[in-house]
Amino acid sequence: MFSYSILLIAALCGAATSDPSTSTDLLWPLPNGNTVGSDMYSLDSKTFMFVPAGKGGSSDVLKEALERYMKLIFLPSPVPALASSITAPMDKLTVTVDSSDETLALNTDNSYMLDTSMSMLSAKTVYGALKGLETFSQLVSTNSMGQFQVPSFKANDVPSFLYRGFMIDTSRHFLEMKTIMDHLDAMAYSKFNVLHWHIVDDQSFPYTSIAFPAMSVKGAYDQNHIYSQDDIAQVIKYAKYRGIRVVVEFDTPGHTQSWGKGIPNLLTPCYANDKPTGTYGPINPTLDSTWTFLHTFFTEIARVFPDSYIHLGGDEVSFLCWESNPDIQKWMKMMNYTNYAQLEQYYETKLLELVKTIGKQYVVWQEIFDNKLEVLPDTVIHVWKGGDNWPKEVYNITKAGLKTLLSSCWYLNYISYGEDWPKYYQCDPLAFNGTAEQQALVVGGEACIWAEYVDSTNFLPRTWPRAGAIAERLWSKTDFSDLHSATTRLHNHRCRLIVRGIPAQPPSGPSFCPHEWEE
Amino acid sequence: MFSYSILLIAALCGAATSDPSTSTDLLWPLPNGNTVGSDMYSLDSKTFMFVPAGKGGSSDVLKEALERYMKLIFLPSPVPALASSITAPMDKLTVTVDSSDETLALNTDNSYMLDTSMSMLSAKTVYGALKGLETFSQLVSTNSMGQFQVPSFKANDVPSFLYRGFMIDTSRHFLEMKTIMDHLDAMAYSKFNVLHWHIVDDQSFPYTSIAFPAMSVKGAYDQNHIYSQDDIAQVIKYAKYRGIRVVVEFDTPGHTQSWGKGIPNLLTPCYANDKPTGTYGPINPTLDSTWTFLHTFFTEIARVFPDSYIHLGGDEVSFLCWESNPDIQKWMKMMNYTNYAQLEQYYETKLLELVKTIGKQYVVWQEIFDNKLEVLPDTVIHVWKGGDNWPKEVYNITKAGLKTLLSSCWYLNYISYGEDWPKYYQCDPLAFNGTAEQQALVVGGEACIWAEYVDSTNFLPRTWPRAGAIAERLWSKTDFSDLHSATTRLHNHRCRLIVRGIPAQPPSGPSFCPHEWEE
Repeated sequence: MFSYSILLIAALCGAATSDPSTSTDLLWPLPNGNTVGSDMYSLDSKTFMFVPAGKGGSSDVLKEALERYMKLIFLPSPVPALASSITAPMDKLTVTVDSSDETLALNTDNSYMLDTSMSMLSAKTVYGALKGLETFSQLVSTNSMGQFQVPSFKANDVPSFLYRGFMIDTSRHFLEMKTIMDHLDAMAYSKFNVLHWHIVDDQSFPYTSIAFPAMSVKGAYDQNHIYSQDDIAQVIKYAKYRGIRVVVEFDTPGHTQSWGKGIPNLLTPCYANDKPTGTYGPINPTLDSTWTFLHTFFTEIARVFPDSYIHLGGDEVSFLCWESNPDIQKWMKMMNYTNYAQLEQYYETKLLELVKTIGKQYVVWQEIFDNKLEVLPDTVIHVWKGGDNWPKEVYNITKAGLKTLLSSCWYLNYISYGEDWPKYYQCDPLAFNGTAEQQALVVGGEACIWAEYVDSTNFLPRTWPRAGAIAERLWSKTDFSDLHSATTRLHNHRCRLIVRGIPAQPPSGPSFCPHEWEE
Repeated sequence: MFSYSILLIAALCGAATSDPSTSTDLLWPLPNGNTVGSDMYSLDSKTFMFVPAGKGGSSDVLKEALERYMKLIFLPSPVPALASSITAPMDKLTVTVDSSDETLALNTDNSYMLDTSMSMLSAKTVYGALKGLETFSQLVSTNSMGQFQVPSFKANDVPSFLYRGFMIDTSRHFLEMKTIMDHLDAMAYSKFNVLHWHIVDDQSFPYTSIAFPAMSVKGAYDQNHIYSQDDIAQVIKYAKYRGIRVVVEFDTPGHTQSWGKGIPNLLTPCYANDKPTGTYGPINPTLDSTWTFLHTFFTEIARVFPDSYIHLGGDEVSFLCWESNPDIQKWMKMMNYTNYAQLEQYYETKLLELVKTIGKQYVVWQEIFDNKLEVLPDTVIHVWKGGDNWPKEVYNITKAGLKTLLSSCWYLNYISYGEDWPKYYQCDPLAFNGTAEQQALVVGGEACIWAEYVDSTNFLPRTWPRAGAIAERLWSKTDFSDLHSATTRLHNHRCRLIVRGIPAQPPSGPSFCPHEWEE
């Protein structure tokens, strides 16, 4: 009923039974600067220990990570057990962390050095150590004697990009807390380090504001579809303990229909035939009350979300409603504005200034750059528009000396039939004609899954392991055209995600995992 | 970041809050011949009773169904509670079943009459009663007082088609037993009545044969990826108790790579340059050993799967390997065969004769008809080829006086971005230019989800509620173009599936359910 390449099946069966002792087939994303030796060490779950050391050795983040990884390394192996001969037992891994600083920021060092023969993992920061622990845990498999084993392996691993993000959208559909937490685990297993939380939008406002409780009371789908302050604190802490920053987005002045329900006069009333239609457009930038509200609101947000960056959105602002409104027309005349792009510019300039005064940096969607608004020098411009134009956009942004972040080729919500991860894998954020200085301004990229058709019923299988392709692209200096190795490794990674409790779907045609997903 | 029709959002919010007391918004598939009154009856979970009656009233199938529905009707409502005034309490539903015959076959009567005002459900068969219980359970919601309620409602409901099938493929990827059972529940909630189990194929052979245990020992992915005889008996019983036939498919002579691993000499050795290549083609029809095997094997299958029909496959037979084999060439000469279609015809004629002698009827893929093989008069030809040619195919099959079954427009494995269920909903198996006699030969249709990219991680959310569109098309005489009503009802049906434990994904853009899926 269905033509399927026998070759690929063979490749996958090969993948599922390849000998992990002589290869890096178990690793995703592939560590940079790695070498595999021929020795194999046994791990005894009763006696094996992590030994924290260095100034950061007493970090709580590290301590909890060691507890987690002690469990993860002794889970059933994601690949079938194979014969292999043990060279020696390995009774500990010393984890040395140079710094006790637990700050998590754009430039936090994520590198580590791992040498299993020396029983040694070292990192400058606790977050680098977390990455090394993940790599170590991925190397563990079981042999035909039922022993846990790890090969002799060295890596001096530094990620390709500082910003390896994933965007969730909790407005079009709500995501249950458990789904977000599971997703953060899967992100950590794939070395993502930023959760971009597109928390509200036109459709619903699940953020429960302290200063403006009416926003979620009136703007959420209902009171079962909200994130309390406690929920949000939990997400931020859970993410931090996995080395993941939480960059929240409050997108304005468009995409704000749900805001208007709780804040009177915030949105622009639209007119037709000199009468209000009862519908509303973008935030009304011309009223003092708007700015009083925005100041209080973003001051709260800056406190609730500790990351130094806020995502301010700024995309897809329609001028039609502004144009229809007689009060806005009058104000425009007073300001000597002749087109509504000037009004948008007025809004954004004032908002960016406001956010700067409350001490935050910002990420904004590419329209802010396209519309030539003035931004702070450390602003990150988020490129999202699809098609073939993004390299030109990235060129222009970096030419202007600004940092940038790519999502154009990484919209996971656009599903299609078949094996689609290679197209994500082969998208290179540095594939534009810029100087080394320009390339250095590309801080990374972000997988986005807009939630029109996604909620807690299908979020995890639809996301994983497809997002893994992007995770490796942002971490590893692997050959983009080596899909053979990537197919094998991604298959094993998805089997590992299943063992660890993530229902990751089949990425590449007929296959099986030693341990399948059971509800 | 994403243009979304505000209209649809409004429609969906409407859907989620529409008053069930004045509409049939809660029903999927929509019962034929229904009328809704203005009365509303309360149900008390402590005292409400089903009262079985009639010759079939003591059926075990009915008894278990009443126990299940007693739980299902008192689950949280899939729509938000709304004010409504109770006319009277309803303390029982009398369920009268005319016949005690529990035979489940193609022509088993599935009709029922329901009249909630008279506290009465009646059906000719227990399987009709099951359909009526499902309808009754869908009518139950809760009001703002927290009371369960059901409107005055009458239906004289007869399905449009006898065969409302769903095909699962457990060869490309394995499906866990729990997934199959959950899926059978979801099928029953949508009034599907046939599980077509494409149990084996090239990629793996999870069926554990009694006579030929080597087939799964060598042909399954591994021994965690098999269905024991006990598993199969469980599936058949679970299905029967939900009014669902199990039609198993053993597809030959192609799609049999995994068969060859356990049965020596069954498959045709392929040759190149006068030497065997080590690869194999379709079953070798020229050997006596093949026919000895097939007789024993299908005799077992006929006993293990009690349904009167077996699906014999017969699709996509490539002649290349047969053509390359010198023994086959010699045999062809001996038989005076001049082309390999004659060899295929020889195989199929002999197989159909064999299956007839062991007392089974058969479903076959359309190639058997296209290749002009002789079949029994009650054979069902399964139309699967895509594109615009299926109405011509259905015309030709029914013109030849044969029964047919449509799947061409219902391949759920072909996913695409966005709201895709309307295209399944709008495909009409009777949209061909045939006489009334020809139309009567269209026994129904079947949703297919080939499993190249589907396993227990994503099967349920990817299938539901999309398959529901096909379920309603095969049951209801609803207007194909009324997507507005269908959108509302399908939304409510998916919220009901969630409450009942099926992670059904969002079908139509931004929305929410009162009770979301929690792992």
